Amino acid sequence: MVRNSLGRSIPESFNGQRLTPYQDPFSYSPQGTHASRALRRFNPGQSKLLGSLREAIEAADLRDGMCIATHHHLRNGDALLGAVVRELDALGLRDITIASSSIHPVHAELIPYIQKGVISGFECGVNGQIGELASKGELNCPIVVRTHGGRARSIISGQVQVDAAFIAAPTCDCYGNMNGSQGPSACGSLGYAHTDALYAKKVIAVTDNLVPYPATPISIPQTLVDFVVPVESLGDPGKIVSTTTRITRDPVGLQIAKYAAQVIEASGLLQDGFSFQTGSGGISLAVADQVRRKMQQQKIKGSFGCGGITGYFVDMLEEGLFQTLFDVQCFDLNAVESIAKNAGHLEISADMYANPFNAGAVVNQLDCVILGATEVDVNFNVNVNTESNGLLLHNTGGHSDTAAGAKLSIITAPSIRGRLPIVRDELTTVTTPGETIDVIITERGIAVNDQHRELKNELLRRKLPVKEIQQLQEEIYSVTGRPRPLEFTDEVVALIEYRDGTIIDAVRKIKT
Amino acid sequence: MVRNSLGRSIPESFNGQRLTPYQDPFSYSPQGTHASRALRRFNPGQSKLLGSLREAIEAADLRDGMCIATHHHLRNGDALLGAVVRELDALGLRDITIASSSIHPVHAELIPYIQKGVISGFECGVNGQIGELASKGELNCPIVVRTHGGRARSIISGQVQVDAAFIAAPTCDCYGNMNGSQGPSACGSLGYAHTDALYAKKVIAVTDNLVPYPATPISIPQTLVDFVVPVESLGDPGKIVSTTTRITRDPVGLQIAKYAAQVIEASGLLQDGFSFQTGSGGISLAVADQVRRKMQQQKIKGSFGCGGITGYFVDMLEEGLFQTLFDVQCFDLNAVESIAKNAGHLEISADMYANPFNAGAVVNQLDCVILGATEVDVNFNVNVNTESNGLLLHNTGGHSDTAAGAKLSIITAPSIRGRLPIVRDELTTVTTPGETIDVIITERGIAVNDQHRELKNELLRRKLPVKEIQQLQEEIYSVTGRPRPLEFTDEVVALIEYRDGTIIDAVRKIKT
Repeated sequence: MVRNSLGRSIPESFNGQRLTPYQDPFSYSPQGTHASRALRRFNPGQSKLLGSLREAIEAADLRDGMCIATHHHLRNGDALLGAVVRELDALGLRDITIASSSIHPVHAELIPYIQKGVISGFECGVNGQIGELASKGELNCPIVVRTHGGRARSIISGQVQVDAAFIAAPTCDCYGNMNGSQGPSACGSLGYAHTDALYAKKVIAVTDNLVPYPATPISIPQTLVDFVVPVESLGDPGKIVSTTTRITRDPVGLQIAKYAAQVIEASGLLQDGFSFQTGSGGISLAVADQVRRKMQQQKIKGSFGCGGITGYFVDMLEEGLFQTLFDVQCFDLNAVESIAKNAGHLEISADMYANPFNAGAVVNQLDCVILGATEVDVNFNVNVNTESNGLLLHNTGGHSDTAAGAKLSIITAPSIRGRLPIVRDELTTVTTPGETIDVIITERGIAVNDQHRELKNELLRRKLPVKEIQQLQEEIYSVTGRPRPLEFTDEVVALIEYRDGTIIDAVRKIKT
Repeated sequence: MVRNSLGRSIPESFNGQRLTPYQDPFSYSPQGTHASRALRRFNPGQSKLLGSLREAIEAADLRDGMCIATHHHLRNGDALLGAVVRELDALGLRDITIASSSIHPVHAELIPYIQKGVISGFECGVNGQIGELASKGELNCPIVVRTHGGRARSIISGQVQVDAAFIAAPTCDCYGNMNGSQGPSACGSLGYAHTDALYAKKVIAVTDNLVPYPATPISIPQTLVDFVVPVESLGDPGKIVSTTTRITRDPVGLQIAKYAAQVIEASGLLQDGFSFQTGSGGISLAVADQVRRKMQQQKIKGSFGCGGITGYFVDMLEEGLFQTLFDVQCFDLNAVESIAKNAGHLEISADMYANPFNAGAVVNQLDCVILGATEVDVNFNVNVNTESNGLLLHNTGGHSDTAAGAKLSIITAPSIRGRLPIVRDELTTVTTPGETIDVIITERGIAVNDQHRELKNELLRRKLPVKEIQQLQEEIYSVTGRPRPLEFTDEVVALIEYRDGTIIDAVRKIKT
């Protein structure tokens, strides 16, 4: 065990790999080169069509101990990962690593296959029951949680080698050109799959909407795809995209959103060329709504919105408040419809979105991001992975990436959730380093990181409820009481990898 | 010296590299892996803007003996390559290899720098005076001529390592997102530059139209670009794109075009889903015109047109005769305007267009291509590189790529040009193997390769003037006389590399 610069206890190795403890957000530089894969030759007349996932597994020559990937653009409606794993099991394959872009609650269906030894590890974060069981020590299955940018980096750098990427293709032709904007499983952007298409040893497009050549628009081109497998269905359309995403109606959330918009205005960033990201949560959307009104009133022409895209951002694009949307994932139907028809709504890869080890990701150009938290500490470090009960329930997503990239990264969160205080003496898990967080906003007040002294003074001048974070914590504790520390065993069940590949924290088995 | 399978005499090595003689069009398979380059890290706030090409050369750490590339999307209007070479010279650099996508007549301005030792080789074909002087032995500067697909392959496979790619960007932002559809040097597709952006050790965007972030649409993204250099002008807009491309008015050409359209109809390929490529020459456009009328009359809905795109193909797209245009280069203003606005008009890389060593290029899906020739022989082999005076004057372009890919590859050429016969006993140079050529059409008759026996019978049934190629040759010789063989020295001045990297011919110094 060693302690990283945030004082978190990190094992020296995990799952056979030596680890580098996190040091700081920006100085760790890559030494190596881009990963490579074999050159291929496809002659005219050669078909890529296969009859089933089983044929694809065989054609890709998958063996025990190999690594596969799928992608979460079908979100909780995804049926592909489960179907692939069932076929792997049927073929008797064991010890497979899953390096998907994310695991959703629907994938609790994998649990029997973990117990059976078909799956022996996750090179990706897990939302839901798998993480819960891992935290309780009930699964023998190491997990490495990565940010969106960190996942792209891990593949591009060769840290994670995907033997076969199974890409859910809502529309695809016989030669592998694919997009996500049409078909019964339309999901919009395929942003998380691009990097796998470039680096996986074998690339398999799986589609429930095979169309005549060429399928256009082309998100991922034929030149990267080895096999095409038509299937009956990729998943449950009702769970692939939300029909709508809604602003919070909770007065606490609305108060937080109002403060957030006021902080953005005070920052001076809200002017022509403004760029912005929010999530799809109710408070985030409420902030977006406030910002939108201010932009309309002040006739501000923004530059771009990015990240997972909602109908809210689509409206802002159509109103001319943004010139461009950079879309790595569509969150709702409006976004899916927009990406199919609006030339200003661009699909981008997770690499372009957030990878720290390329020639510059979109997050580096971001003015302001609104982020959530399950816990923060007085050094502005943030936890989004574990709940305060110690269970690993959430992925990092683009949290650490956008926090590092944006000029102004704002955490919005209610001061108390489920009777638990948001500001803690010590975090259950550190996801995102405080050095990259500028402001924490609760309904009880606004804490500004010391590096933003000018902003703090401006907020005070505008009579916003600025508080020292310690003061905020004391006020919250006076309501909730000081929480009792959780107890953990020494057993590490998951790593939280920072976007640059260093280890910012380890998740341990809880004492039960 | 060894003889390849076409009987051409190939040196065992050239410019220090061991050579593999050409064997056949489809069986040579790649052994290696994709080339790689160092991972990079760009943090927020880091600027890519530089003040001049000289600063870019220094920032890219270019040294004696290194390799640079530019791209011919600015065609004969390009001022960038000349400007870069002048700066290399001013900095005292010597022994630089040029691996551009093509050299145009405008680049005759490089000749003094070849003589001076700044430039010591071309890993690319050369159009115009440089090839002429090389053929005469007046330049000490080895040349390797490649197809469009072969150039992409050479970079992706690591055969050619570009130390710095200077990409002319008609529109670019400060972070390197670029496109060719806007700005004073608008040229449409940047298709030849994509591969360099992915593989060159340093990528420098040079622009005369720096716009606010983000420049959209994005042809080449920020993630691949190290530096951005604003300059006064990229070239002469009047020579970058033609204002128009025109159908031939020559009766011989029109007769050939009529035959070609009849052959296409007879082939059975002219039905829904038809895909097609022609060049921008007068006969090619006349064939396109004939095919267009037939498609209109028969209400055929084609699939795609590809290659260098003209206004003629744009009209066909807009009329619904094609669903898609795959555009690696825009030949005229109409094409430039179309690619900027029509979602069915897609920019593709030379890799996607024609590389034999990926998971399948667009040419593999092509039904019919119309190609030219300076000479053909009775085995249907074609020369497009040298003239019958022995001078290396032309690049291969996509000739061998499309011939290999298309189901029906048709050579159209007048039987006699400048008193010289098109069908020869022996070619001055072999560019494209006869095995990949299906039909040769002159105004005196149509020769069909033996592998297309059914087509030959169908043409006879339709009373088209089918002739054995030997018969055609005799008829032409009876007018022109049998040409005297040219005399060459043993000195190899250039290689003609087949698309797979094997050597299909060598160009020797002429005896003067």
